[in-house]
Amino acid sequence: MTHTDLKILDCTIRDGGLMNNSYFPIETVRAVFNAACLAGLDFVELGYRNSKEMFSTSEFGPWRFCDEEDLRAVVEGIDRRNTQISIMQDAHKSVPEDILPEKDSVVDLIRIAAYCRDIEKAVILANNAVDKGYMCSINIMAISHESRKRLDEVLDIIKEQTRVKYVYIVDSFGALNCDDVIGLVEQFKDHLGDNGTGIHFHNNQQLAFANNWIGMKYGAEIVDGTLDGLGRAAGNCPTELLLSSLRSEKYDILPLLEVIQKEIIPLKKKIQWGYHIPYMITGIFNLHPGAAMKWLTSNEKDDIVKFYKEISGK
Amino acid sequence: MTHTDLKILDCTIRDGGLMNNSYFPIETVRAVFNAACLAGLDFVELGYRNSKEMFSTSEFGPWRFCDEEDLRAVVEGIDRRNTQISIMQDAHKSVPEDILPEKDSVVDLIRIAAYCRDIEKAVILANNAVDKGYMCSINIMAISHESRKRLDEVLDIIKEQTRVKYVYIVDSFGALNCDDVIGLVEQFKDHLGDNGTGIHFHNNQQLAFANNWIGMKYGAEIVDGTLDGLGRAAGNCPTELLLSSLRSEKYDILPLLEVIQKEIIPLKKKIQWGYHIPYMITGIFNLHPGAAMKWLTSNEKDDIVKFYKEISGK
Repeated sequence: MTHTDLKILDCTIRDGGLMNNSYFPIETVRAVFNAACLAGLDFVELGYRNSKEMFSTSEFGPWRFCDEEDLRAVVEGIDRRNTQISIMQDAHKSVPEDILPEKDSVVDLIRIAAYCRDIEKAVILANNAVDKGYMCSINIMAISHESRKRLDEVLDIIKEQTRVKYVYIVDSFGALNCDDVIGLVEQFKDHLGDNGTGIHFHNNQQLAFANNWIGMKYGAEIVDGTLDGLGRAAGNCPTELLLSSLRSEKYDILPLLEVIQKEIIPLKKKIQWGYHIPYMITGIFNLHPGAAMKWLTSNEKDDIVKFYKEISGK
Repeated sequence: MTHTDLKILDCTIRDGGLMNNSYFPIETVRAVFNAACLAGLDFVELGYRNSKEMFSTSEFGPWRFCDEEDLRAVVEGIDRRNTQISIMQDAHKSVPEDILPEKDSVVDLIRIAAYCRDIEKAVILANNAVDKGYMCSINIMAISHESRKRLDEVLDIIKEQTRVKYVYIVDSFGALNCDDVIGLVEQFKDHLGDNGTGIHFHNNQQLAFANNWIGMKYGAEIVDGTLDGLGRAAGNCPTELLLSSLRSEKYDILPLLEVIQKEIIPLKKKIQWGYHIPYMITGIFNLHPGAAMKWLTSNEKDDIVKFYKEISGK
């Protein structure tokens, strides 16, 4: 397995922000950013740039909006080395006007997250970002709900109508197994060539790291992780596992362990993420984890049998 | 992927017993056994039959010894259906005299766990078990420390000198990745034919389920899991994930979820198992998890950075 051109993107703050309405203290975000730079990660994603018309600034923290001045406060005084900064726009929750020209921003990469049904909105946002000077990706969410044929159509639209650098396979529901990943990476490569396939997995079935590993083996070019797997519901592939598996001198795991110890593990007192049977259940039934997240805030949260029966209809 | 002859073995009580000196209440063991029978599991392992000369009965609970009367108390009044009972003997900690003739026992399968260096002891115990009428396996522990050549020699010895039904790949350290598993399963099948390869993985790198999945795909015939992954250190592949991935009418996940809810999750108040960064560190350095388990009982347990530096020598 060679990974000459492989890129690693850590999206701890962005995906983890789905567990705390993006309310991370700036000290935490700076520490994560600094660790990512020291570790030699290729990209670090600092949050969403979603519309303040659609999200209330009183209900959501700064990393749901990533105002330029907030991003500058994160990076100020930190040696970025070779690490580039990413933010995400949701196709159905973001607007082109919120993106400054690249020369006025610390951001390098804008990732457009889209369901297939929103591909037209994604194309508009992607073209807006590319026209303004950014690297761009389109991240196809909930991909386990899409047919091969529909994905062929969407990949054709992206190829014909945009100049994005990457297109991502996003397993929002943690429903894919290793064979599914091989099939999707090969399909994407048929459209995109050797360059351009990204992968982002969730850990509902304890397969996030394995699926990344298989995806890299079959030629994915950019791979997502989060520190200690912090992310929505069952969380993501731990970035530290990605690094240790690559055994590349380009990366250093130690700064990641330091920030995990100092900033991420203490968050477990407030936020629960990671493998948990209710999340496994939504994963195996190929469903959004929202039902499990809601169940886990209810009085019946410990009744996993009842949850299974409700979800399965048995 | 077809799994016509695939067998699933749950070893919750045996491997989990490494976290509590095999002190499970008999009600828990009966509940696990009953659930395994209702779920249609092929085998359930109820503990070790290790020597009372080598283990103190005041320091270890009944499931380290599995006296016949204790096993009978477990199974009494429970409809076994098609589920068979396994116990384990450690090659270097067990004696032939502790095994009754099969007709006087509720046990069906005796698994001999052995390091390669103890293969001669394992052969003696395996022949003893087969001669007394049992199905038998030899489980090669710490396999990530063995060369391909050494494994060829050991597999030849097993084939020539025993009549065991299965030989297991045991990743005691959670060090193997999916390619390693494919290579080992293929090597074992070269010696054993299509029948006889077993797999047992630990979750130090969140790969226990993925490695089982890949191992089954490449032709492993018998696969281990534990309920909610309960087992030494990072634990094992969750049996419920195995069942859900097979989507076979032979198995029913619901009885497993019921016993997990009632008996296994409450154990988390006393025993900590599952993915945790110190276990990840021993896994990536291909070391016994003992160092991490000891660290986690020390005053420095939260200092994962210091543990990494000690283990890596950096």
